[in-house]
Amino acid sequence: MSQFKSTSRLISFVFLAAIGLLTSPFLLAEPTTPVNNAVVPAAIEESAVLLRERALLDNLSVDIVESLTTEVGPRRIGTDGDKRVIAWAQAKFRELGFDRVWTEKVDLDRGWIRGEAHAEILSPYPHDIVLTALGYSIGTNGDLVGEIVEFKSLEDLEAVPEGDSLKGKIAFVSYSMRDYVPQPGESEMAGYGKGTGARGRGHVVAAKRGAEALIIRSVGTDNNRYAHTGSGYGYVEDTKKIPAAAISPPDAILIQNMLRRGKPVKLKINLTSEITGPASSANIIGEITGREGSDDYLVLGAHIDSWDEGTGAIDDGAGVGSMMAAAALIGQMETRPRRSIRVLLFAGEEIGFYGVRAYFAQHEGDIPQHLLGAEVDGGGGRIHTLTSGVGEKSVPVIQEMYKLIAPLGIAWSDANDAKGASDMSVLGKAGMPALNFSQNSNDYFDYHHTPNDTFDKIIPEDMRYLTAAYATMFYMAAELDIDFRQ
Amino acid sequence: MSQFKSTSRLISFVFLAAIGLLTSPFLLAEPTTPVNNAVVPAAIEESAVLLRERALLDNLSVDIVESLTTEVGPRRIGTDGDKRVIAWAQAKFRELGFDRVWTEKVDLDRGWIRGEAHAEILSPYPHDIVLTALGYSIGTNGDLVGEIVEFKSLEDLEAVPEGDSLKGKIAFVSYSMRDYVPQPGESEMAGYGKGTGARGRGHVVAAKRGAEALIIRSVGTDNNRYAHTGSGYGYVEDTKKIPAAAISPPDAILIQNMLRRGKPVKLKINLTSEITGPASSANIIGEITGREGSDDYLVLGAHIDSWDEGTGAIDDGAGVGSMMAAAALIGQMETRPRRSIRVLLFAGEEIGFYGVRAYFAQHEGDIPQHLLGAEVDGGGGRIHTLTSGVGEKSVPVIQEMYKLIAPLGIAWSDANDAKGASDMSVLGKAGMPALNFSQNSNDYFDYHHTPNDTFDKIIPEDMRYLTAAYATMFYMAAELDIDFRQ
Repeated sequence: MSQFKSTSRLISFVFLAAIGLLTSPFLLAEPTTPVNNAVVPAAIEESAVLLRERALLDNLSVDIVESLTTEVGPRRIGTDGDKRVIAWAQAKFRELGFDRVWTEKVDLDRGWIRGEAHAEILSPYPHDIVLTALGYSIGTNGDLVGEIVEFKSLEDLEAVPEGDSLKGKIAFVSYSMRDYVPQPGESEMAGYGKGTGARGRGHVVAAKRGAEALIIRSVGTDNNRYAHTGSGYGYVEDTKKIPAAAISPPDAILIQNMLRRGKPVKLKINLTSEITGPASSANIIGEITGREGSDDYLVLGAHIDSWDEGTGAIDDGAGVGSMMAAAALIGQMETRPRRSIRVLLFAGEEIGFYGVRAYFAQHEGDIPQHLLGAEVDGGGGRIHTLTSGVGEKSVPVIQEMYKLIAPLGIAWSDANDAKGASDMSVLGKAGMPALNFSQNSNDYFDYHHTPNDTFDKIIPEDMRYLTAAYATMFYMAAELDIDFRQ
Repeated sequence: MSQFKSTSRLISFVFLAAIGLLTSPFLLAEPTTPVNNAVVPAAIEESAVLLRERALLDNLSVDIVESLTTEVGPRRIGTDGDKRVIAWAQAKFRELGFDRVWTEKVDLDRGWIRGEAHAEILSPYPHDIVLTALGYSIGTNGDLVGEIVEFKSLEDLEAVPEGDSLKGKIAFVSYSMRDYVPQPGESEMAGYGKGTGARGRGHVVAAKRGAEALIIRSVGTDNNRYAHTGSGYGYVEDTKKIPAAAISPPDAILIQNMLRRGKPVKLKINLTSEITGPASSANIIGEITGREGSDDYLVLGAHIDSWDEGTGAIDDGAGVGSMMAAAALIGQMETRPRRSIRVLLFAGEEIGFYGVRAYFAQHEGDIPQHLLGAEVDGGGGRIHTLTSGVGEKSVPVIQEMYKLIAPLGIAWSDANDAKGASDMSVLGKAGMPALNFSQNSNDYFDYHHTPNDTFDKIIPEDMRYLTAAYATMFYMAAELDIDFRQ
């Protein structure tokens, strides 16, 4: 059941030979657990290999990101860009030959206007400061002036007794993700998690100590003069609402150098951010309908929203591009796979999984029909490790399928604890079998949530590798008659 | 004549051993031309080695840049920052023990207010564009809207016949320094020179073809979403004055991707820049007075001004820091060197050598007293090659001196055509003997003329190497009784 024309095979062979895969050590990489029964029929395996090799040559995923970032650009939930992307995504699914395309409403309880953000050090040395409001921060209602008090971490700020000791002050959490060294057993991304604490609830902790505003050193790995925005967890009742903003790493260092001189450092902040009323958005879904109908389906996820200062190329244009392309490439095969493949483009991930939570509320009863799921929300880098999250009996099947993507430089993890990345974890935790494709993070947190997240940061060859891995695995999973829950 | 305490020698030895210089291949690097007569007395050589090693351990150059960028920051000529830096530099010279400190007035025929810079693509897809006014551009006098016409280079724009074919249009020169591959025989910096053509006079060329404004892709090697400012060569009589701005590389790519779709791309620009009246500034000079008086002197140069969106750490804080530190370290030796060493901090380099031209006008008759000169204006990177620009009889002397800095990884060039870098070339062309210390450019043109030129971009170890090389060479030159013109 070779589904491509014979020229594809030749091209594929030449390509694999050219990139050295045929003789590369990757071909020797075997799953660490022995697989006793080959469960993938030879015809499916043959088609999967051709699909993989075609995907490695196909620029579709990159072209989709180019289209998204050029024709839409920033698309924070509730904005005009969000409206435009809902139209764009439906049109793109249709253009790519998806059989069914639809949207599902997502209610947004509150909107937000970013407005302008200006700050300057007034003394001891005048300087402009690059900062950005954290998502859903209130504005400053004119100029807010205060002396900066530095805390090395959120924990240090929390150690201050509640009360009014920070009255008139601006609390500054200077924790640096760039300088964080993961502890034994921690993932390389542990430094991000630590940074999101102050970003998410630092303003509440600071307000309980009397502070007038919170600033944090941006949560990122770069030393560019951009501030990284991101979502706060919102305000809580009975605690004063104070503005919250991130400053660029070079400005954080500048302020620390001033503080080291022992003189008071006075900062003026002006944010015109504003929380607004309810709005609505949508998840957009495209389906390659399986030849056995669309009652059961595999799901590939990404989030369609982005932050609003860049064009959302790596976060999460790369996910949108690779997931749409992986399914579209399967859709370009001669026949439809046995099972349907749905691409779920979730709204409002950036402000707290709004889209997937709406999806789950509507589809909680349908979880058994979700046969297998995965999501890309870590940029356009290559995959380094595959982890399954399936029933015990299915693990050898996934391992057998995995052999076809091992030549892409992907290792196997025995953990079998995958829940699906990002949005998809909501469905994974509810029982959907999942695969986690861990990606090389490359320079992801250099650009993440900044004006610098733009199309030129996409590395086309990496995107093709990424897309090929998903296409190959999900094609096989869609062909096989297997219940991955077992 | 060991001028340091004996502990210095031990520290130096340990340090050199630790960094591998004692056994490194650099020690084997010999000048390519044989030196027949050792002209540097052993005592001077011994002191020079100790000075070099002390400089390698001394963070003074970095501390000076930190002070400059923290306590002053941006300091474009004619601005408040310029006034502050004139005071800062005099105080810093005194603090560092310079024997004489003075300023020399520099007249500025015209000032400039940068103002605000905003731009957005109106159609076919709305996008905000990051741009910055080029130095001394006029403003747009409200919103300026025009269709973008792309030219791959200044030459392509020049190929359009003069007239009004670009009436109503915005000329866009998309030349990319990042993509420029130097031709055989060109320096690695050739791509910068090519970019400065459109930056300097593109607005005049475009105006002669009827264009309403000029935008260029920023002249830089990065793909960050910053625009690189820089100086235009000014407006010319009988040609319409049009605004000129640089856009960030990612935005240049975005516009090119839009243009590729074949639809007109409409841009709105709003610049509130303004050319103002005359002002004044100053060169600041600090002298370590030689034990034979101050009639003859060696000169170390850097420019004190910077562009106004970053804090001028690499351009030219690194030069200010390394030159002040090199002379100060010589000044910290037990006795003054035979000849004086002057550090010349020039005003207004960025807008066309204003400071050095004023200096030359005043000191044209004193050029014979300038025994040897050099300048750092290429960031804080290490030196890779030393080139002399001295009389034929002096070349072997410089080569002999050079042996003491060869262990820092510095090669020797036989060209003997150095005129001194940047400002100093004005004096070199007028007959002053000079040395050129060619630096590793590292990521210099990633940050150059952007908001991202900040202190965190300084690599302390590189700065120490840079400072050590200058201190070592100029100490020896100040001790020797040699006329480098011969």
